[in-house]
This record gives sequence, structure tokens and C-alpha cells, in this order.
Amino acid sequence: MICDDNRETIRSDEELLYPGERFDDLQRNHYKIIQNPKNFCFGIDAVLLSAFTKVKKGETAIDLGTGNGILPILLEAKTQGKHFTGLEIQEEIFSMAVRSVKANHLEAKIDIVCGDIKEASSLFKPSSFQVVTSNPPYMNVHHGLKNPRLPKAIARHEILCTLEDVIREASKLLEVNGRFYIVHRPFRLVELFHLMTTYQLEPKTLQMVHPYINKEPTMVLVEGRKGGAPMITTLPPIVVYEAKGTYRPEIYELYGF
Amino acid sequence: MICDDNRETIRSDEELLYPGERFDDLQRNHYKIIQNPKNFCFGIDAVLLSAFTKVKKGETAIDLGTGNGILPILLEAKTQGKHFTGLEIQEEIFSMAVRSVKANHLEAKIDIVCGDIKEASSLFKPSSFQVVTSNPPYMNVHHGLKNPRLPKAIARHEILCTLEDVIREASKLLEVNGRFYIVHRPFRLVELFHLMTTYQLEPKTLQMVHPYINKEPTMVLVEGRKGGAPMITTLPPIVVYEAKGTYRPEIYELYGF
Repeated sequence: MICDDNRETIRSDEELLYPGERFDDLQRNHYKIIQNPKNFCFGIDAVLLSAFTKVKKGETAIDLGTGNGILPILLEAKTQGKHFTGLEIQEEIFSMAVRSVKANHLEAKIDIVCGDIKEASSLFKPSSFQVVTSNPPYMNVHHGLKNPRLPKAIARHEILCTLEDVIREASKLLEVNGRFYIVHRPFRLVELFHLMTTYQLEPKTLQMVHPYINKEPTMVLVEGRKGGAPMITTLPPIVVYEAKGTYRPEIYELYGF
Repeated sequence: MICDDNRETIRSDEELLYPGERFDDLQRNHYKIIQNPKNFCFGIDAVLLSAFTKVKKGETAIDLGTGNGILPILLEAKTQGKHFTGLEIQEEIFSMAVRSVKANHLEAKIDIVCGDIKEASSLFKPSSFQVVTSNPPYMNVHHGLKNPRLPKAIARHEILCTLEDVIREASKLLEVNGRFYIVHRPFRLVELFHLMTTYQLEPKTLQMVHPYINKEPTMVLVEGRKGGAPMITTLPPIVVYEAKGTYRPEIYELYGF
């Protein structure tokens, strides 16, 4: 049977890897993910975003700029959502995400689509998702950009899309009362709030991520609600490290170890 | 001599107190302040705002809604600012501030003015201050307001002025590059940022105040700069209590004990 043939192929992991790539164990549901240190590896940002994001039973979610598919794969493992989509513009990285979904036999639950965030609301039906997530490029093109064609530069700098593109398209894709979850750098918090309110994604929850309790935060997690009323809740901060190289116990819990 | 006579009167503390009032020791420069538990007592909010506020040598500062004058008095003690003004609309509370200034012999450094924040930029010369501070009413009039004529209600609820009034007037009073320091409730952070950018007071520094490290913040401290470029720094959080009733060591330092 075709289906069984497919399963057989998928089980043979090595065939799914391209040169320079490896499988990393996600320590969740025995899932694994394809990484390539040269092109794309997920960071703690994605893991924290997956822990911050709430997907309820039966909901559908889309991740804008999904990289190697880390967000949809973790959310599939952690939530009872019905279906997950990942949108990624870079063909090499998109291919890693597609093969990671195959390697975990998640084709029925996760779609990976190659396309442009700027056109997301024409690629997918507007107002059709309950959840949108994004771990977008943090830096604008003025922030020390060396080679704008490298995959890592595209993931980190606003070369192919801006924060406004992400937020505008997220708003269009969400149904009323749908939730938007984003991780970003604290230095752009004012702009982030401004763009979210401009596109009717009222910021409802804020959480700061500090490396140590007495250091400045390195990330912010923000939840917005489409058409929500103004009033934001700030959660207790996440503190990542207990000492150099040692995560605090909560972080291991978030990872799902 | 008139001057000596005045000093004599001031030293006789009891004469400065009205029924129900008391002097509290500020534990700074031997300064004291008149408090009245029925009408107005300063909170930890004001003390944290005074620690967050930077007044440089020779600068002039104004506090919008100064209550019993706690901000100008603490800032005079802690900084090398040239002159401080406190604006207070409620006559009874204004009178407490005037008498506290007298009790500390600070008439040459601190002016207390009775007037309306909404008209601050017509009471004082626009663009003439380097620093504006405010610990304004936190709640709008919908938030469980019982008796809108009581002094404490006016200090806590936006009965006589709104957050927008405070920010608009602060902006008018500040010279270009002047700094605005405000303490507020975290649930209004989005609105606070929005109003500050609307009135060209770009938010530049944010600090959250948590009662305990694993609890939601109860206050936000924000510094804005008139005409500043967009980019905000978030400081490590302030954590107030070590255990119930015991401040953390940093808090004692902020108090200046």
C-alpha cells in the first residue's frame, strides 16, 4: 500500500537529511527536528514562544516565518490544536521543515507552505485562524547587516519582511477574538505595541525574559487579541539561568524535558 | 529680623500641623513631611519614582499632582537639581505640601503651586523644564469609584485630570530632550506608551516593580524623552519584598535609609 510505502521511507531517517544537516531530539513525544548550524537552528526564543502560546482543543494555528518548523511541531506536541500551518519563504529552510514534519509522521496535522509573509492573507483564507504565532526577524536592516543574502541574515534581519508586515498579515488571518503570539526584542516594545493596536491586535499579555534576575531582559513575549479591549496583564518574568550554563528548573519544564 | 522670626516659627513644628496631621521622618537629610492618613499619605510608588528620576546638576524639575510634596522634597534631597516645583489642585493637600517645605526650610529650592494640571502649560512657561515627574491617579472613573469628592478619590481616580492631560501638559512644559518620569499601573502600559509617543515623549526606559519575583508587577516606571528616537531599554525588575513585611535590601537603599 502506498501509505505503508511512505511510512517505510520516512522511517529511514538518513534519507531525509541533506549534507550539513542533522536530527535533534526535541525531547517531546519522541519528536525530532532537522537542523543545520550553517543555515538555521531554532533558539530558546522559539521554545519560550511555544510555551507562551495557548492553542485550545480544536483550534487551528499558523506560524509566520516558521524556519525549520519548530513552532508547529512543538505546538502539535504540547496542545490539542486541530491543525497547524507553517509559512516559510526560504526554500532551503522550508525544505527542512517539510522533512521534519515527514520524519515525525505529522503530515495530517501540519502543513508547511513556501511563501511570503507579506502575502499571507492572499495565500490563506482571511479570518480563518484562531491562533497566529511569529518569531520574526528582530533587527531592522540598519542593525549591523553584513550579507543580506545569507539564510541566517534573512531570519534575523527585516530583509524580506518588516514587523509591520507580520502584524498586518497576522491580523488579517485571525478571526475576531483570535490570539496573536510573538517573541521579540525588548528595545522594540513601544513599536510592537503601536503596530499591534494599529492593526486591532490589542496587547493583552506581556512577559519579559531575563537571562539573570538582575540583568536586562533579552526577549519579550506578547499576546494580542483581535478586537480586544485595552488592558494588559504583565506576567512574572522568566529568568533563564541559575548560573552560567545552568538553566533554572522552570526552563527545563518549558522545554518539556 | 523677619528672616530669623520666620525660622523661629518654622522650628516650632507643632504650629505647622492641622488636626489629624503628623510629621513623618523621611530618613533623608533629616527632612520630614506632613501626612494625614485620612486625606493623603505618600506610598512606595512615590519613593520608587524618586529613585528612578534623574535630575542633573543645575536642572529644574516640576511634579504634576504633587500631593504633600513628597517628590520635590525627596528629589531636592537626592539630586543636585537647581529648583523644584510641585503642582497640586486640592487646597488641603497643597497646604500640607507648602507647610512641609517650610518645615524643612526649602522655600528657596521648592515652590508649591495650587493649580490644575490641565492648565499647567499656561501656569508655567512652556519648554522651560528639564524634568517633569508625575505619580498621577491610576484608575479611570469606571474603576469602582465610591465618593468622587473625597481627597483620596481625587488622588487615585481620574476625576480632575486624565492620563492624557498629564502627558500633554508634561510635553508642553519640557524643553527638547527634556525627560518625563512617571509611575503607573502595568495594566495601562499600552495606553501609556501610546499617549507618550502621541505627545512626542518617546519612551526610553521601562522598569517593572514586582512585590515578589514570582508575582505580577504592581507598578511600572517609565522615562520618556521629548523628541527622542524610538528605542526603549528595559531595566532589571525591582522586587520589593523578601518575605511578608520584609523589604529586600535594594529597597532600603532606594529609601535612603
